[in-house]
Amino acid sequence: MIIVKAGGGEGLDMEAVCADVAALVRQGEQVVLVHGGSHETNVISEKLGHPPRFVTSVSGHVSRYTDRETLEIFAMVAAGRINKLLVERLQQLGVNAIGLSGLDGRLLEGKRKSTLRIVENGKRKVLRGEYSGRIERVNVGLLQMLLEAGYTPVVAPLAISYESEALNVDGDRAAAAIGAALKAEQVIILSNVPGLLRDVADESTLIPHIPLAQAEECLDRYAQGRMKRKLLGAIEALRDGVGQVVIADGRVEEPVRRALDGQGTVIR
Amino acid sequence: MIIVKAGGGEGLDMEAVCADVAALVRQGEQVVLVHGGSHETNVISEKLGHPPRFVTSVSGHVSRYTDRETLEIFAMVAAGRINKLLVERLQQLGVNAIGLSGLDGRLLEGKRKSTLRIVENGKRKVLRGEYSGRIERVNVGLLQMLLEAGYTPVVAPLAISYESEALNVDGDRAAAAIGAALKAEQVIILSNVPGLLRDVADESTLIPHIPLAQAEECLDRYAQGRMKRKLLGAIEALRDGVGQVVIADGRVEEPVRRALDGQGTVIR
Repeated sequence: MIIVKAGGGEGLDMEAVCADVAALVRQGEQVVLVHGGSHETNVISEKLGHPPRFVTSVSGHVSRYTDRETLEIFAMVAAGRINKLLVERLQQLGVNAIGLSGLDGRLLEGKRKSTLRIVENGKRKVLRGEYSGRIERVNVGLLQMLLEAGYTPVVAPLAISYESEALNVDGDRAAAAIGAALKAEQVIILSNVPGLLRDVADESTLIPHIPLAQAEECLDRYAQGRMKRKLLGAIEALRDGVGQVVIADGRVEEPVRRALDGQGTVIR
Repeated sequence: MIIVKAGGGEGLDMEAVCADVAALVRQGEQVVLVHGGSHETNVISEKLGHPPRFVTSVSGHVSRYTDRETLEIFAMVAAGRINKLLVERLQQLGVNAIGLSGLDGRLLEGKRKSTLRIVENGKRKVLRGEYSGRIERVNVGLLQMLLEAGYTPVVAPLAISYESEALNVDGDRAAAAIGAALKAEQVIILSNVPGLLRDVADESTLIPHIPLAQAEECLDRYAQGRMKRKLLGAIEALRDGVGQVVIADGRVEEPVRRALDGQGTVIR
């Protein structure tokens, strides 16, 4: 069982990701593909006259403010456009893909974070009406039923709150949560960097290997922005029984194969 | 087993439809909800700078020209926005809804119609690059597996061609095809008219009952535009073993309950 997370940002070669997923499925491997949606959501939000708004939390973390309108656009783009085009492409490659969001069958359930504590123009503010959250439960039965029946789940990073509201969730952590729930051998997280870097400005400073015991130290020392969530997700997944997490480059040829060969940052 | 088709056009009370579906599911009934997407696709296509284009076929039938860009917008709106918001609402009502498009797990498979023969300014033309089609196969196994596991499928009207291209399909005929494949007792088709009318301009001329033997005659005499496809779908479904089809009003309170009580045009 391999969980592949790909997409969200710009520059990923999704065609190459799909080809690799198809090759794994042909070899009899069970794969769950988790994708993102933030870049395309920005583009379409802009066109629809509801431009994305990014805010800085009191702890200095930059994130999207997901009001209800943004949530609905995100659902449309991630669970509609991106998810269905990936399913179409995988079907063309002979994979019986089935697209789901975390809402469907309560696949990904979690707690809504309805307010954000932010800093704007040097002042602290509370922003209400946020629709994001953190996944706490995965419907393992649904995924296993589909995998056993020969389907390859393709998952859009939305979740459902305990009050049944749609939530925007981080795709990397969704992949980690799914990996943990399924006790996957590997979780591969592909993005537009080669892995965790000692110096974010220099791709030659890749950290090739992190033992789990040192992962939190690396998180504090080297991880910034989105990389923090990837590493956090990795730590959670490994603690919950995933064999190995690889944070790797999604812009190259055969990105999944290379990650499985250990190219990237391997955490175990 | 009841198949409910609702939505697509304007004016339907989807909140009331969801409440009725939830009541049926609570009673232990298996339900599949099929929705549309044409009206919202028009609105969003317009905003995205790719306004819908309607063409008249040589046989006088008006339909949407679904070029690839329109198909992708349709997938986004129908399988993303509409489908996921319905799933969210049903989950809030206690229904374990799972949203799918016909692409997912090859749920609805059919033949692509890649060219349209149209009449424009009095001249006959062939329009290429069309992405629509007609459903020929339903993945019954997938629907049955989900229904037996307690999920309520919510289906967006896209299909997949034999060459694995995404297709825009008619929602009414998708509901009819699903009903036929599952040998449903009833297929309820809700729209913004009370049923088949003798005079389209007069809602009091509702035809309350049509025996299957007379359905084709009614099709030729009374059905226009979208109603033609509803009636065609009904005839196909009944021939394939559906017990009863009701074409009914979706703008009223308790629309599904009323249709089940026989309010509308009952065909059997």
